[in-house]
Amino acid sequence: MAPKVTTDLLLQLRQAMKNSKYVQETIQAYIVPSGDAHQSEYIAPCDCRREFISGFDGSAGTAIITEKAAALWTDGRYFLQAAQQMDSNWTLMKIGLKKTPTQEDWLVSVLPEGSKVGVDPCIMAADQWKTISKVLKSSGHCLVPVEQNLIDVVWRDRPQRPCKPLMTLSVSYTGVSWQTKIKALRAKMAERKASWFVVTALDEVAWLFNLRGSDVEYNPVFFAYAIIGTDTIRLFIDGNRMADSSVRLHLLLDSHPAAEEKVQVEPYGKVLGVLQTICAGLAPKEKVWLSERASHALIGTVPKAHRLLTTYTPVCLAKAVKNATEIEGMKRAHVKDAVALCELFNWLEKEVPKGNMTELGVSAKAEELRSQQEDFVDLSFGTISSTGPDAAIIHYKPIPETNRTLSINEIFLLDSGAQYKDGTTDVTRTMHFGTPSAYEKECFTYVLKGHISVSSAVFPNGTKGHLLDSFARSVLWESGLDYLHGTGHGVGAFLNVHEEPCGISYKTFADEPLEAGMIISDEPGYYEDGSFGIRIENVVLVIPAQTKYNFKDRGSLTFEPMTLVPIQSKMINFDLLTQKEREWVNSYHQKCRDVVGPELKKQGRLESLQWLIRETQPIAKAH
Amino acid sequence: MAPKVTTDLLLQLRQAMKNSKYVQETIQAYIVPSGDAHQSEYIAPCDCRREFISGFDGSAGTAIITEKAAALWTDGRYFLQAAQQMDSNWTLMKIGLKKTPTQEDWLVSVLPEGSKVGVDPCIMAADQWKTISKVLKSSGHCLVPVEQNLIDVVWRDRPQRPCKPLMTLSVSYTGVSWQTKIKALRAKMAERKASWFVVTALDEVAWLFNLRGSDVEYNPVFFAYAIIGTDTIRLFIDGNRMADSSVRLHLLLDSHPAAEEKVQVEPYGKVLGVLQTICAGLAPKEKVWLSERASHALIGTVPKAHRLLTTYTPVCLAKAVKNATEIEGMKRAHVKDAVALCELFNWLEKEVPKGNMTELGVSAKAEELRSQQEDFVDLSFGTISSTGPDAAIIHYKPIPETNRTLSINEIFLLDSGAQYKDGTTDVTRTMHFGTPSAYEKECFTYVLKGHISVSSAVFPNGTKGHLLDSFARSVLWESGLDYLHGTGHGVGAFLNVHEEPCGISYKTFADEPLEAGMIISDEPGYYEDGSFGIRIENVVLVIPAQTKYNFKDRGSLTFEPMTLVPIQSKMINFDLLTQKEREWVNSYHQKCRDVVGPELKKQGRLESLQWLIRETQPIAKAH
Repeated sequence: MAPKVTTDLLLQLRQAMKNSKYVQETIQAYIVPSGDAHQSEYIAPCDCRREFISGFDGSAGTAIITEKAAALWTDGRYFLQAAQQMDSNWTLMKIGLKKTPTQEDWLVSVLPEGSKVGVDPCIMAADQWKTISKVLKSSGHCLVPVEQNLIDVVWRDRPQRPCKPLMTLSVSYTGVSWQTKIKALRAKMAERKASWFVVTALDEVAWLFNLRGSDVEYNPVFFAYAIIGTDTIRLFIDGNRMADSSVRLHLLLDSHPAAEEKVQVEPYGKVLGVLQTICAGLAPKEKVWLSERASHALIGTVPKAHRLLTTYTPVCLAKAVKNATEIEGMKRAHVKDAVALCELFNWLEKEVPKGNMTELGVSAKAEELRSQQEDFVDLSFGTISSTGPDAAIIHYKPIPETNRTLSINEIFLLDSGAQYKDGTTDVTRTMHFGTPSAYEKECFTYVLKGHISVSSAVFPNGTKGHLLDSFARSVLWESGLDYLHGTGHGVGAFLNVHEEPCGISYKTFADEPLEAGMIISDEPGYYEDGSFGIRIENVVLVIPAQTKYNFKDRGSLTFEPMTLVPIQSKMINFDLLTQKEREWVNSYHQKCRDVVGPELKKQGRLESLQWLIRETQPIAKAH
Repeated sequence: MAPKVTTDLLLQLRQAMKNSKYVQETIQAYIVPSGDAHQSEYIAPCDCRREFISGFDGSAGTAIITEKAAALWTDGRYFLQAAQQMDSNWTLMKIGLKKTPTQEDWLVSVLPEGSKVGVDPCIMAADQWKTISKVLKSSGHCLVPVEQNLIDVVWRDRPQRPCKPLMTLSVSYTGVSWQTKIKALRAKMAERKASWFVVTALDEVAWLFNLRGSDVEYNPVFFAYAIIGTDTIRLFIDGNRMADSSVRLHLLLDSHPAAEEKVQVEPYGKVLGVLQTICAGLAPKEKVWLSERASHALIGTVPKAHRLLTTYTPVCLAKAVKNATEIEGMKRAHVKDAVALCELFNWLEKEVPKGNMTELGVSAKAEELRSQQEDFVDLSFGTISSTGPDAAIIHYKPIPETNRTLSINEIFLLDSGAQYKDGTTDVTRTMHFGTPSAYEKECFTYVLKGHISVSSAVFPNGTKGHLLDSFARSVLWESGLDYLHGTGHGVGAFLNVHEEPCGISYKTFADEPLEAGMIISDEPGYYEDGSFGIRIENVVLVIPAQTKYNFKDRGSLTFEPMTLVPIQSKMINFDLLTQKEREWVNSYHQKCRDVVGPELKKQGRLESLQWLIRETQPIAKAH
């Protein structure tokens, strides 16, 4: 894969940084965050500004361009990929390594005295703005808003913002009507004495209104904002999407609902203006509630005295705890997903030895098999189909230039998932279609032990997910091994595959305590650059646990795997497992067989059923 | 133990809160933090204002008094104790329980609109001021500085601030001269472009100058501030302590050192004034470096543009990594401490069955035995000698009214330690002098498994201690049990027994990564209110670990126990231990025998040597 040639682009950008048409005064550095105006993780092509300027197309990263340097910060998942995609104009800043400076510290170290650092205030989250601004200020520099996005200036063929049709979700999928959700939201607003709540995250708008879209790849969301008042509902959305009769019916646009259920539809671009008008009319003690990660531009519109900022919004918190209908839907989705993967793996076992099966071929086949399942909508992220050294690139996505052929001599790692109308899936399996080496099996078994350690952990109510992260690593650590990514992330119900506010990570982040009904992933791994990669990922549901004692009547929680795809026994060194771990594997496989088997049968996929039965044989310690 | 009657005191305080002699305008609430002007954890009697007003004398807690309510926040170690020591005027706020509001949120929920909340700005740390002030402001209230401490107004017989003689420490104890320490500090200041560093924490002043004091019980520190410039050294300290010839010699006060090694001595109370003068003369880009936990009054003296605030100061970070001389000293101290405890436990085994041995009796005997050891200076904290239900009070300290007699029917928990001139110790052992119940053994064994899990953990360089916390709990969690305190804290070298910036806790705190040479405690526990308490605590040294592989050449760390006191085998249910855990216990006991045995012999304590040999017999699984 050839890196993107950025010499000319950087030249043009540096000219724009001095051009009084765009900046009041010359700026010495320009920050290009990876997000859009909603701080989305996955973004539309028109918002891929950091990729455009640097060539690096991973999901996380920030570029900073100064007069002389260009640097890109990303995390361990992307070190290899970023190094391959960027040309020599760029310096890769590896987040998580001790010697890597923060963006602020780096800026302070390279900038001439009294520099101005520019950024688009609509793209940068307010909390990030604050952090960077503070450090720059304390070193005599200054962070300045540049209204005209300078990447857009040099990006000649920038795509249009998408505006695709909406899908309405009935209560049989969501469990709760949007009216009830808004009522609950208003109760939370009353608790915090907020008269207004501005919904800025795309998945929060989608969840709140029980609507889905396809403006952003893989995430069933649409570009919109909402402002909820104590008795008003404003939805900011473009295009003729509100002309659709099912949407009109869903939102009661043509009936005459009670005032507090009436949805006023406004153009997407009007949100700042309407918010300004609302703020102009605020009584002295009235509060406007926003996520502290809303854009600097949006939060700046609300006078300080009227701001109520929280890390997680009430919508984010309500969305995280899935109701019974959502849980049932997620379970259905995972059974369908398992059917597709059983078909895929059974087929691969026959195809790989022929020597014609490539990473892209597997991706296509996986998508084809998933799309045969009921209520399939889309993939939930770009399939990571990777073999041999490619699997060491943690968020690798095959492209024709890198497309490797699977063989019976290399480990194959498949991280994939789908959006079904009833739920979102995300599963990683690592397989060998020949005979794995003892070392590969050893590493796989350590990863499996970590996976089981998290999955079977019992912990008190109120425990934050980050406290479980080391359980996934301790066995790897004991052998001097580790992996440079978190262990788990929240998963939406037919929504974003990465969802806040909970997760499992060694990074200090303000995660909310785990609660029964939350859904997260459990995905430890191990990666050797240039050689192979291993990851074992299940989506798991937080459920109450029965324990022998019950300290302080707090109650306990544990996890129930929702993903039901066999873990390849061939890769396991059984002697490294404890009796308890062997029992976990056997009981997990039994459940795969019991739950997915009947569905395979029902769908008439009998060969895959045989494969499932073979792959879920109980294992025992070698003698 | 009768609670303190506070009705009259609160009446007087509430009058002071309205008295224009002390406050410009009536304040609706008054905050009484537990710290002194240096944010010390252990404080001098004159600074025990929160204890004076509430009756609660634990080491951590904050009192807030409003016109109608009085509330005290403390953590799980102190729930029982606080409930017993406070009268019905007070509401106990249990930090760590989900329903407990933060101080700020509680204030917002009880205050009338537009309230003023007062606090002494010299006592409250700047970061805490900022947090509370922000929340109050956003709800229309205001945090105001009250220069005259209002507790002092109502505290008629408040003691004087102590001013005890100093002890100088030679390089044979510290490994490094104070001149070298100041040189290293100035290098760090240059790195961060700071012209001044204000030393505000008492243990940082003591460490930097290789001086010790006894102004605060258990902590060998003295009331002082220092301001280090690029070529000046100012020490702010009261009394005639600088008249002592050994101190004068140590600090070169009568010789003519190079300008940058010349110590200017000033009165303690002058620090604010001198800092003001320094700030008035600052060039535009000059920075003054302070801990962000320095007092609001002190930080407020430095104009914002000149402030460099960090969570941990360069002195704090340098102090945490012990040098070879300090490590050797700490090891010597722990051997002496083990000798005292072997003597104690051997003696207790004979005394307890007689029925005359009380908690206070054990405390006295432990102190007597420790004081017989070379270079003994003081205890390192108030001995927790507790039996039966008293041991469930996590930071219990026996007083005549609660003094319980040890018996062969109850568990006994002893958490104690000493200051020796060569090191600080802190050790907890839980013992039974009769026959423990199966349940007591079960709980003890879970705690032991947690202790071993941390102590034998292998983890990569750069790992923060909080990531190890769950290792100590996982076995307890599995049975629905837990303990409401952290697992470990940093330990000073002949300094404070609780030392930053590292530790092991479930609470999110900005701990620094563990490094070889750091010293922390490993002390999981289990407590049943009204019944019994268990804790097993060793002080452990962070050391490099040899591993099979070495991912990314990061290197690995593990712990080496410095505490060498047998863990009572009688309390262990061997069948609950894994083979690896049994090996850990046996090898630990072997080391106790090998290292402490010769010292017992050398000191002629032969009966205790026999006890040690008996208590360190290898254990095996029951058949």
